[in-house]
Amino acid sequence: MDPAALRDLVRGELAARVGEGVVTIDPDVVAAHSSDEALFCPDDGAVALVRARTVADVQATMRFASRHGVPVVPQGARTGLSGGANAVPGCLLLSVASMTQVLGLDPGERTVTVEPGIINADLKDVVAEHGLSYPPDPGSVAISSIGGNVATNAGGLCCVKYGVTRDYVRALQVVLADGSLTTIGATTAKGVSGLDLRSLFVGSEGTLGIIVGITLRLVPLLPPPLTAVATFADERAGAATVSAFMASGAQPSMLESLDRTSLAILNAYGDFGLDTHAGAMLLMQSDGGGSRDAAMTEIGAFTRQAEAQGALDVAFSDDAADNEALVAARRLAQPSFEHYAHSHGGGQLLDDVCVPRQQLPSFYERLGTIRDASGLTIATVAHAGDGNLHPSVFFSTADPDEVARAHRAFDEIMALGLELGGTITGEHGVGHLKREWLARELDEGNRGIHRAVKTALDPLGILNPGKMFAHL
Amino acid sequence: MDPAALRDLVRGELAARVGEGVVTIDPDVVAAHSSDEALFCPDDGAVALVRARTVADVQATMRFASRHGVPVVPQGARTGLSGGANAVPGCLLLSVASMTQVLGLDPGERTVTVEPGIINADLKDVVAEHGLSYPPDPGSVAISSIGGNVATNAGGLCCVKYGVTRDYVRALQVVLADGSLTTIGATTAKGVSGLDLRSLFVGSEGTLGIIVGITLRLVPLLPPPLTAVATFADERAGAATVSAFMASGAQPSMLESLDRTSLAILNAYGDFGLDTHAGAMLLMQSDGGGSRDAAMTEIGAFTRQAEAQGALDVAFSDDAADNEALVAARRLAQPSFEHYAHSHGGGQLLDDVCVPRQQLPSFYERLGTIRDASGLTIATVAHAGDGNLHPSVFFSTADPDEVARAHRAFDEIMALGLELGGTITGEHGVGHLKREWLARELDEGNRGIHRAVKTALDPLGILNPGKMFAHL
Repeated sequence: MDPAALRDLVRGELAARVGEGVVTIDPDVVAAHSSDEALFCPDDGAVALVRARTVADVQATMRFASRHGVPVVPQGARTGLSGGANAVPGCLLLSVASMTQVLGLDPGERTVTVEPGIINADLKDVVAEHGLSYPPDPGSVAISSIGGNVATNAGGLCCVKYGVTRDYVRALQVVLADGSLTTIGATTAKGVSGLDLRSLFVGSEGTLGIIVGITLRLVPLLPPPLTAVATFADERAGAATVSAFMASGAQPSMLESLDRTSLAILNAYGDFGLDTHAGAMLLMQSDGGGSRDAAMTEIGAFTRQAEAQGALDVAFSDDAADNEALVAARRLAQPSFEHYAHSHGGGQLLDDVCVPRQQLPSFYERLGTIRDASGLTIATVAHAGDGNLHPSVFFSTADPDEVARAHRAFDEIMALGLELGGTITGEHGVGHLKREWLARELDEGNRGIHRAVKTALDPLGILNPGKMFAHL
Repeated sequence: MDPAALRDLVRGELAARVGEGVVTIDPDVVAAHSSDEALFCPDDGAVALVRARTVADVQATMRFASRHGVPVVPQGARTGLSGGANAVPGCLLLSVASMTQVLGLDPGERTVTVEPGIINADLKDVVAEHGLSYPPDPGSVAISSIGGNVATNAGGLCCVKYGVTRDYVRALQVVLADGSLTTIGATTAKGVSGLDLRSLFVGSEGTLGIIVGITLRLVPLLPPPLTAVATFADERAGAATVSAFMASGAQPSMLESLDRTSLAILNAYGDFGLDTHAGAMLLMQSDGGGSRDAAMTEIGAFTRQAEAQGALDVAFSDDAADNEALVAARRLAQPSFEHYAHSHGGGQLLDDVCVPRQQLPSFYERLGTIRDASGLTIATVAHAGDGNLHPSVFFSTADPDEVARAHRAFDEIMALGLELGGTITGEHGVGHLKREWLARELDEGNRGIHRAVKTALDPLGILNPGKMFAHL
């Protein structure tokens, strides 16, 4: 539809059907809401922003969109890294960021029901008051919303022991393309009544419906962990330690790695006192399932594996403040990378491949070759215990040759992930950034199911078009 | 298609396309394979049995079925309890029970890839040799196949701590309705490339495709548990203990309950020395995450909760043989019920509702009313820690009035489950038995998604017709 005509319809018909002040066509406001945290993804062309305050607002918006065939881009906190929340030409931006209520907390059943806009860390605080934990902790835990976490099936640092967002979703309330509201899943501990549509919507990136209510499973407060830090001369030795440690039956509650370049960038950013002579650092936590003895045993096993791989140093601490400082430094990796990029040409392409853990040493070796061929700086942090790697390629956005080399390296990293038996995205999702690569990862039968399901649920193709499905 | 014509096509066209001896139209053999363990579900009309030995056999069968519009009923060990594997008129029975190979075991990545016909207990034995566990343990663990476990998202005794089948499925190989083969999911620890189609197929009961390969996540060997047994004067006190214990943050690795009638039937069947003066028995295990101290602490907490509810007796044991004997007795509940039914009129309707754990006392109270109104014997075992209850209604199949009262009680139990905020099936699935009730549980939007997905993946409606979707 012609943007001017759509603008008129929005101001008239849509504005009359949603709450006061819910819709705006102010170009500055719309532009300010047109993108998430991904770089190099288009974000032009949004016509209006709907700031839904109620489920009824979302339903009215989808009914309007269906009636007129208008594309809708669902948004939460817009902290995604794949452009999934970016505007597409002629779209309505449909934000649920203002829907932040806790609708119900049931300590007996260990569940909480929330609106999608609540921030992950805020939810953690709410449930902690009842002696409960909501474990999933993406790097964006302080700024990302639960709705976005569910829509992308967000991961994080604790996944290696406690699983990803999907593992905690019991039931969803979803507004479908035609504006109808449905409940899927069961709030009970078990349930097999019909297809598992709940998991179909978890990670669907706004392409199948708008998630407006979420019932999450909670667990008793996680026990406090012990933390060990090991440094190595090179990435390969760190990676080999991870492979051997995990193969030995270890169950760390966190197992992160940072390479030499990451350590240098982080130290320059925040003076964390990290050992910048090291070629790699592993950060491991064990909570021993609540047993300090079990945690100490696991720390011991980690130390032996690290030493067997020639670790430069292995240290451990049970000082909560020390541990939090280390984890906080790890969580600042992405901000430090953004800061580094800002002063080094502006460009960062952040990748997110996941490989079998036994392939980690090979991955780092082959990544070195990609880095050398690109002539660019590449820094890699990893949720190593899961085999989930985040190489960042830095480049000057003003230099077309560097831009080309950066994109080539970014693609080569995904190709390497697939070659080693892995996937192009472990936790960031497809969005706009990886839509071409999704088509390479999935076989024809799988692409066919994707197309069939998408057409069945969104026959007009108005839900987040141009994302995920564009090349399937 | 006319059965005689189909029989000719099977003998000619299909037999030529699958391996030697794979297809049979022998009426006795076909009849012997026409049903699972469900009672009171139709199983007439199968035309042929395909005993697939390879993926190619399955593909050839589905191509044949698509070409001629022939219904296909997929089967594994046929131990299901909802009639999901029962024949429908004019169908081919497609058994993958002979496909039992372990295709690959990767101790480093902690995964195993198997064909669907392997028996759950056999898989457990294979992975235990590598120091690994596959936790899901449906009551049928010794006789049910992994493919069937995946197709029904089977649960079991350990779910309360270790989750259900879905929580262990990494990737699937699936033959679609048209005979094409596709791989869905990733074998890595994490992966969000596209929709979570893997979970869509887990629990789909053969209505969307034929699962021919399964990659499962494994965990380190589960630690040996301590076992506590508590007896109570009535079911309500046992149920209140479960509610309070779980609400206190407990994480038992097993929490089962048996009511007075179950205890009596079991003792008559096997002379297990269970206390038949008790109105209810709870069987609780704690592995303390590997810490004996933590397990002892949890046993202590359980004991206090049981005593607070007026337990008749609480005892605990760390003798592995004693514990195994108790769990073995619990596992014999269903065989003992079948034996009881056999000598008491032949009829047993086995239900499978799941309610919020806090509703367990109300459930038992209301179940008493249903029992009294029916005038029938109803015995209830439960995976109480999950709120998953299996009331069995016994009746004489020769007495039309008893049959009617039994079906009424069976329905009232499901209605009660829904009324208490639960689901009509926690782990047995819908199959034929609960297809009408599925339509009552799901709202219109949800039913619409079910229909849309089914039509998208099985446009000819040849995959297990008459099951799950029949009333949606």
